[in-house]
Amino acid sequence: MSGRAVRTVDPRRAVAVGIDFGTLSGRAVVVRVADGEELADAVHPYPHGSVERALPATGAVLPPDWALQVPADWVEVLKTAVPKALAASGADPRDVVGIGTDFTACTVLPTLADGTPLCELPDLTDRPHAYPKLWKHHAAQAQADRITAVAEERGEPWLARYGGRISSEWEFAKALQLLEEDPEVYDRTQRWVEAADWIVWQLCGTYLRNACTAGYKGIHQDGRYPGRDYLAALNPAFADFVEAKLEHPIGRLGDCAGGLTAQAAAWTGLPEGIPVAVGNVDAHVTVPAAQAVEPGQMVAIMGTSTCHVMVSDRLGEVPGMCGVVDGGILPGLWGYEAGQSGVGDIFGWFVDTSVPPHYHARAAKRGLDVHGLLTELAADQAVGEHGLVALDWHSGNRSVLVDHELSGLVVGQTLATRPEDTYRALLEATAFGTRTIIEAFERSGVPVAELVVAGGLLKNELLMQIYADVCDRPLSTIGSDQGPALGSAIHAAVAAGAHPDVRAAAAAMGKVNRAVYRPDPERARAYDELYAEYVRLHDHFGRRGAGGGNDVMHRLHALRTQALEKKNSDRKNTSGKDGR
Amino acid sequence: MSGRAVRTVDPRRAVAVGIDFGTLSGRAVVVRVADGEELADAVHPYPHGSVERALPATGAVLPPDWALQVPADWVEVLKTAVPKALAASGADPRDVVGIGTDFTACTVLPTLADGTPLCELPDLTDRPHAYPKLWKHHAAQAQADRITAVAEERGEPWLARYGGRISSEWEFAKALQLLEEDPEVYDRTQRWVEAADWIVWQLCGTYLRNACTAGYKGIHQDGRYPGRDYLAALNPAFADFVEAKLEHPIGRLGDCAGGLTAQAAAWTGLPEGIPVAVGNVDAHVTVPAAQAVEPGQMVAIMGTSTCHVMVSDRLGEVPGMCGVVDGGILPGLWGYEAGQSGVGDIFGWFVDTSVPPHYHARAAKRGLDVHGLLTELAADQAVGEHGLVALDWHSGNRSVLVDHELSGLVVGQTLATRPEDTYRALLEATAFGTRTIIEAFERSGVPVAELVVAGGLLKNELLMQIYADVCDRPLSTIGSDQGPALGSAIHAAVAAGAHPDVRAAAAAMGKVNRAVYRPDPERARAYDELYAEYVRLHDHFGRRGAGGGNDVMHRLHALRTQALEKKNSDRKNTSGKDGR
Repeated sequence: MSGRAVRTVDPRRAVAVGIDFGTLSGRAVVVRVADGEELADAVHPYPHGSVERALPATGAVLPPDWALQVPADWVEVLKTAVPKALAASGADPRDVVGIGTDFTACTVLPTLADGTPLCELPDLTDRPHAYPKLWKHHAAQAQADRITAVAEERGEPWLARYGGRISSEWEFAKALQLLEEDPEVYDRTQRWVEAADWIVWQLCGTYLRNACTAGYKGIHQDGRYPGRDYLAALNPAFADFVEAKLEHPIGRLGDCAGGLTAQAAAWTGLPEGIPVAVGNVDAHVTVPAAQAVEPGQMVAIMGTSTCHVMVSDRLGEVPGMCGVVDGGILPGLWGYEAGQSGVGDIFGWFVDTSVPPHYHARAAKRGLDVHGLLTELAADQAVGEHGLVALDWHSGNRSVLVDHELSGLVVGQTLATRPEDTYRALLEATAFGTRTIIEAFERSGVPVAELVVAGGLLKNELLMQIYADVCDRPLSTIGSDQGPALGSAIHAAVAAGAHPDVRAAAAAMGKVNRAVYRPDPERARAYDELYAEYVRLHDHFGRRGAGGGNDVMHRLHALRTQALEKKNSDRKNTSGKDGR
Repeated sequence: MSGRAVRTVDPRRAVAVGIDFGTLSGRAVVVRVADGEELADAVHPYPHGSVERALPATGAVLPPDWALQVPADWVEVLKTAVPKALAASGADPRDVVGIGTDFTACTVLPTLADGTPLCELPDLTDRPHAYPKLWKHHAAQAQADRITAVAEERGEPWLARYGGRISSEWEFAKALQLLEEDPEVYDRTQRWVEAADWIVWQLCGTYLRNACTAGYKGIHQDGRYPGRDYLAALNPAFADFVEAKLEHPIGRLGDCAGGLTAQAAAWTGLPEGIPVAVGNVDAHVTVPAAQAVEPGQMVAIMGTSTCHVMVSDRLGEVPGMCGVVDGGILPGLWGYEAGQSGVGDIFGWFVDTSVPPHYHARAAKRGLDVHGLLTELAADQAVGEHGLVALDWHSGNRSVLVDHELSGLVVGQTLATRPEDTYRALLEATAFGTRTIIEAFERSGVPVAELVVAGGLLKNELLMQIYADVCDRPLSTIGSDQGPALGSAIHAAVAAGAHPDVRAAAAAMGKVNRAVYRPDPERARAYDELYAEYVRLHDHFGRRGAGGGNDVMHRLHALRTQALEKKNSDRKNTSGKDGR
């Protein structure tokens, strides 16, 4: 491995490359190390995108809820987006001091001991289980339910670190599904690798698990994974999963995983040997990009869904959080993650399905999109004026109820209710959802001081002001459109030694506009009343058992499933008869 | 008064004229007495319609919730629609054996002892309180609340005959408002007259209160009105209201009120002296038109709202009904009335506010209206497939909760919910509302055997089938588009002696298609499950006190009112400051 290149570069010209591997594309950004100036960026869409219907190699149809990826697509990002961003930046490749990456998670794949993805072995290209399972592969729910139930039964101490529930998206559920559905591919799996680590492995030739995914997705807590007895209780053949396929040295975030290999240097056009940062996750890496490195600064990455990440010096067991991991965001602090499963996609659904033609025509005439028009109309309202309150569960509820069968609710509509009224109620509902999460943290002894928003929704000023008023907290916004890629570049700079640690690098390279939105005391008081209504409905429809009231959403979900199954089976029977 | 003209007419050629006085127009229909054949009809819109903004005479602005009419408009219907329908029918005027009318109710006006409307006195044309108050005049709520509260306190026995609540629309509330807001006009009022009786007075020169409005709107029960002590408790100046202004002989429905005067014969082109039937109400008069004259045959007149009317041989105190009146629909039977305050207007609101452009385009391409397209798309669904349940309270709830501050609710929406899903859920919600009313009757010992639908919504076959399945009862439909006018013609024929009574006339002239929609047992069972969800939500959000759960709808209503009031006062203050 070559020495660290930064020492030979003029610090004023030094740049770092950050690469954000998203769900459908990868984005590279070239960032000046001294001040975080983003010189250029480039995007490369994955040729195969998210594979959800059929295997590209054979056309074999996938079952419902599957989502796979193709590793070669990720390598293409290295070969195309990186050189393109570099060329556009005008920077001399010799001034690149390091490279950092972040990935969706948990996206996980089976490989040989040398990192070769099993799906690239000629005799396994037709096996769905040989491919990387994308974060949104949801077909391991049965395994996830068992993982949680057995942990509860056995009183596993790590369960509380995940808000009491292990997701079907994570490493253990997906591995157990592999074992139980395709034992041959499971047997040939020598390493069960997070894509976040696999890409780093391709860049520097070294396999190192990163502390973020190992903790949040791999159930690594207090230096241990779940034990052999527990794994055997899930499935006897799973007993040695950790020691045989998962366990591997863990790298601290911001550390150097190794130097860029000659092959990766050829792919990217970057100097061989420059430091490659330990892998990371898109949401978590946004924290230094938004300069939210102090305990209690919660970053909400708001897009189709919202991910909340925050560092803290306190350890609390927050009900319904996604997880708390030591060093999971910044070394030396507890990293917390929580989430709302539907936010921007609820607003999008409303605009697509529930807004009449004359609003579309009016928006077009004004040169606005429909979101813009509805926002403008809703902005004129006083708190409570629309007479509505909604529950933001159209895509289920992640934190704090962890229940994907919950659904949306709107109460208060009259014949006078207009689209902008319901739209505003939905904006508010997501703000109430965030407040619910903040209160769950605080009730668990983990203070939340400030909300910092990143992601696409921060451009909606009304939405931002509503969040500030509802949460009664100043609201800061990230100063970059490329939060994750910038965060990866920050980690690259740290790995290269250009800054002493992530905190210092965040101060130099991160970008935040502090307290852009301040709560209005009168609106905040009015929202307290509406929030009290939200909480009542939240508990009545969302909590089961003693704290709850009406499980109607689960029953409607079951009725819907039954009705559709019966319809499908009736249709099959009918078409069978027709065929005779 | 002349003799009954029918005796001189060939029964095969005899016709009756029915006139339906609606909210915005009057409609005359010419009907063959022998078999109910509708020969022709004609509509005449009221020149002043429903006066809700300003007095036509002076332009004086009316307060909110006011709705007045102009009596001369009604007389115009006699002068135009009747001759027009008669001419179009080809009938010889000498073959007209009688004339019958029905009116909206409670529409009520102050007159002199000779029937002259006070608003026609030159010195009172500028006084809003001198005009007829239309049924939907809702500005007497404070008086209505007092009327109910004082009756409760005193244990007035008649209160239970009105489901426990007296409406602001009825005779006493509107009279008390007149007294308290314009005592001079109140003092000059010699008769407080239902428009249904006033129009009959104009036709035959005789003032006779009809048994229907006297009972349902005038609190006439067991031969008595509310007593002097009770009235004095409402307002000492109101103590003699009944004896001084209201009390008057009551005519049985289907009886002859008198012979057509020379003046009215000149207006209408009908023979002088022909029998004029006792007045009636649009909903109630539909019962014989739909041949629903047997106990337990409930007629639902479904339009923007639904009115349920039914005769029974049992007296029950049904919570939340509008009223039960002896002979209020047919002489010799108890007549029941209940209602849903929003039905077709909820579907209309949804189509106007909540359906995206591509549905409108698709409907236009197919030559359908949007209701037709949504109905077609929704018809393909199995019960429960949409995963939704709604409360149909967008316009408040009449029966059985009698609460106009309640509002709509939809639960179960997801990102996969389409407009046809919510549309179907709203159709179903109104069916659940009707089932709630039917069950309230049955629980009170008043059986409901059959549902007969009249009104504009019966053309929606999916809606009709849903009602049959939800209520698990065969559903019949009226065979006429002019139910009320046909019902008035039936009463005219009875008044003329062409049929011995309303029952016999209904058998000859009424029109119904029996059991057009039959419940499907499997769908009915599935709807039992969804209805159970509706009932849970209905009681949780709709009932106050012990049986209830969450008064959120009232609190949202109050928040909305406060927010709007504050906004208006802020604006006034701002514009005041600007003006300085």
